[in-house]
Amino acid sequence: MALSTMIYNHLPTTQYSSMTKLSVVHAHKQALLDPPKAKPSNSASHLAESLSQLLHLHLETPPRTQLHHSIWDSFSEEKHSTPTTSPKEVIANKWREIHGSSDWDNLLDPLHPWLRREVVKYGEFAQATYDAFDFDSFSEYCGSCRYNRKHLFEKLDLTRNGYKVTNYIYAMSHIDMPQWLERSHLADTWSKDSNWMGYVAVSDDEETRRIGRRDIVVAWRGTVAPSEWYEDMQRKLEPFGQRDAKVERGFQSLYTSKNQSTRYNKTSASEQVMKEVTRLVEMYREKGEQVSLTITGHSLGGALALFNAHEAASTIPNLPVSVISFGAPRVGNVAFRDELHQLGVKTLRVVVKQDMVPRMPGLVFNEGLQKFEDITGTLEWVYTHVGAELKLDVRSSPYLKRGLNLVGFHSLETYLHLVDGFHSTTTSFRSDARRDVALVNKACDMLVDELRIPRCWYQLANKGLVCNGHGRWVKPKRDPEDIPSPAREKSVDAFVDRMQTQDVLESVPYAV
Amino acid sequence: MALSTMIYNHLPTTQYSSMTKLSVVHAHKQALLDPPKAKPSNSASHLAESLSQLLHLHLETPPRTQLHHSIWDSFSEEKHSTPTTSPKEVIANKWREIHGSSDWDNLLDPLHPWLRREVVKYGEFAQATYDAFDFDSFSEYCGSCRYNRKHLFEKLDLTRNGYKVTNYIYAMSHIDMPQWLERSHLADTWSKDSNWMGYVAVSDDEETRRIGRRDIVVAWRGTVAPSEWYEDMQRKLEPFGQRDAKVERGFQSLYTSKNQSTRYNKTSASEQVMKEVTRLVEMYREKGEQVSLTITGHSLGGALALFNAHEAASTIPNLPVSVISFGAPRVGNVAFRDELHQLGVKTLRVVVKQDMVPRMPGLVFNEGLQKFEDITGTLEWVYTHVGAELKLDVRSSPYLKRGLNLVGFHSLETYLHLVDGFHSTTTSFRSDARRDVALVNKACDMLVDELRIPRCWYQLANKGLVCNGHGRWVKPKRDPEDIPSPAREKSVDAFVDRMQTQDVLESVPYAV
Repeated sequence: MALSTMIYNHLPTTQYSSMTKLSVVHAHKQALLDPPKAKPSNSASHLAESLSQLLHLHLETPPRTQLHHSIWDSFSEEKHSTPTTSPKEVIANKWREIHGSSDWDNLLDPLHPWLRREVVKYGEFAQATYDAFDFDSFSEYCGSCRYNRKHLFEKLDLTRNGYKVTNYIYAMSHIDMPQWLERSHLADTWSKDSNWMGYVAVSDDEETRRIGRRDIVVAWRGTVAPSEWYEDMQRKLEPFGQRDAKVERGFQSLYTSKNQSTRYNKTSASEQVMKEVTRLVEMYREKGEQVSLTITGHSLGGALALFNAHEAASTIPNLPVSVISFGAPRVGNVAFRDELHQLGVKTLRVVVKQDMVPRMPGLVFNEGLQKFEDITGTLEWVYTHVGAELKLDVRSSPYLKRGLNLVGFHSLETYLHLVDGFHSTTTSFRSDARRDVALVNKACDMLVDELRIPRCWYQLANKGLVCNGHGRWVKPKRDPEDIPSPAREKSVDAFVDRMQTQDVLESVPYAV
Repeated sequence: MALSTMIYNHLPTTQYSSMTKLSVVHAHKQALLDPPKAKPSNSASHLAESLSQLLHLHLETPPRTQLHHSIWDSFSEEKHSTPTTSPKEVIANKWREIHGSSDWDNLLDPLHPWLRREVVKYGEFAQATYDAFDFDSFSEYCGSCRYNRKHLFEKLDLTRNGYKVTNYIYAMSHIDMPQWLERSHLADTWSKDSNWMGYVAVSDDEETRRIGRRDIVVAWRGTVAPSEWYEDMQRKLEPFGQRDAKVERGFQSLYTSKNQSTRYNKTSASEQVMKEVTRLVEMYREKGEQVSLTITGHSLGGALALFNAHEAASTIPNLPVSVISFGAPRVGNVAFRDELHQLGVKTLRVVVKQDMVPRMPGLVFNEGLQKFEDITGTLEWVYTHVGAELKLDVRSSPYLKRGLNLVGFHSLETYLHLVDGFHSTTTSFRSDARRDVALVNKACDMLVDELRIPRCWYQLANKGLVCNGHGRWVKPKRDPEDIPSPAREKSVDAFVDRMQTQDVLESVPYAV
């Protein structure tokens, strides 16, 4: 799809006169067709103008049905006493289709309600990597998870999803991408080199019965600063794996970097996750169980999910591997996409059409050239997306503000809200959507004022300071068990191996 | 003091070469001496340049003693186990001097430790008006106090000061100063017209014995946005009282506005505070007690304190009235100052020399013309300060960041920190200062990173949202008793009057 067409599609269908549409399309055609050498400055300014128009299109506020306060008030009161979840369906006989065995044909539009619930479940696993992350650069634990893996789901009220965390994943924070990962301002920290990057979890017995197999989940943490991405991602493709696949250098570096002198990354994120997944697969297969791997992530986390899927499908025979990503950027070239396809990896990309991140890297370059792909086949040097797409539209929700909001469009909670309310592209937002609307504003300002939900409300009281017995405001020490512990040691492995021979399912899954 | 001299005085004494000093002074002289008609644009640009230099002088970071992390760590650990207060001295025989009977001669430099404690006490009363204020524009109680007057000091841990709140003061929020007061975004609020503007409190028996008289305190709330002030305060002086005094129109409007159609301002702030103060004075005088009135406020609150003092001293015979203000702007002309003097009002202005607000209104105009005052005497049209000044310097504290910080320089917590550490202009910050340093960063970013105190840390968990039984994040309703109640009704007054004849001191001071 050419950029001009893409932009055309982004125009609100009823709000703009055809003249406006045409002039915008014309501007973009100009930008793409002007020979750069002949009119470099003019072309650059055209491009800048086009980008600017692309960004500002969303600033126009389409006339929205004016709802009176009383309507919102009764809405709030009614919703406040409605549970946020419905009874769970048993999907044991449908799980392969829900995870893409038929490439999600006829499941996305309209969106099958069983699939919707599963997509939200995995999205909540990805959201947990943000909610529990220590962003405080004055904390000696900046860049770690605030809770021990045994308590993560309990602290975040996610035990209802029926999974247990078995291991944490760390990645080097010294890779050459500025400001992607968090670092403490302090000299003496839990780790100068690593960030908590996600976790491995596994379904418990009850959930396993409901979903028809033992499901291993890997959730990858992303980043939440799209403006930095735009700067950072005009980068080179580098080889990945044994064949023609090439991937974005920065992403790959994050996935594979390690250093013997560190405490948490003597092994890379790749090695950590593959070791844990392999252990779990073997353990449950030995018990005669059917096992699947579902990898999820938002933004950068969605990119890492693809590497992880590629590696797992290449390494572990006959393992059903699916990826459910949210607002993920492009990761690699067409050969990378084709290899994932050949490996049987099923990828469902959830994308908000107003979100810029899925159009990166190569926002302008790629969109303009993608049409050539149909002609030339595999282009080594063009980033491309993989898998099926579930496309959401910010304008479908009556609860969301109009106007440009780069952070809000990209926010994972916005995604989950839109999934929850999506029925089909031709019908309006589900009136019986139950997910708590207030969650959307946790880290952005997307909800209409009438809902009275503060912007960016997800915060600790007094930023974690507490008043001690002397009346002084101090940062409390972490509970010893919530202090990050390095990845599994040999001796611990041996212990766990011994435990695996016993039938103590509830205690085994935890790596110590 | 001419502007050039003022700027000269603001230069760090050891950091700048005399050449730099001279060139800055020269620039300002140029700005002041250039005939405006001959070179209007040039003069304007000179002035802009001068202002810019004035602002940027503070951006230079003087080399500060580099303290190692270990020193800060041991500092933190030691401080964390030190009480924030010392035993209180009995000042019964000194209170008149402490409240300015000798115009604070020989008490300010060095600062008398008894005076220091009292200044901090009154500053904490002013700070309470910020700490308890509901700033949430999505709250139906935006602009009110979050707590009932009976619980204010308890909630803010101020009961140790030995006072009890007897009444709240409200002011009209519809006066013609943009954005000074808070208004809710909502249509249905506790009040569309009023803001909580402060309170009246009175010393309890124990504190009364310690300080030698029954002390009535009025604490006025200020605003915390100096950038808006600079826009808003190029205004006209208007008559105040019966004689030549003139005062800033906006301040006066806030103090005197009322409207019969409102719930909280059927009477003005002036009428509310005077009624309550008069009631308390009469009540305690009938008991044969000695009574004083101390009025405090920060910023705008310091301006209101002066009106209040003028009115109280004019109205109530033989009442010792003193004002202790923090970072207050100029309020009126020289006649206003003289009238306060003749009325016997004693004013101690605490001023941080880097704070811009005390130089307003008329930042440039006044500083340049003040020298004429010595020649011409009373100038009706020049704003002037009143009373004695306790001048503090941000650079005196080893805990504070260097660099321009308009909000931080003006913050009341910065003032209280500097008072606590001030011994004299020639000695360094008190090593035995006990006030919790962390408080400085409550609403700004002034503490050096080594202290590891987050910026702007004073905040509610999840902005006050709580998760209800259905898993939904909602704004809890206020406790009924914390919902603002209108000012005293006639029937209530009658009840209180009856009560005053009995000796039930603990229950009487409260207006219902």
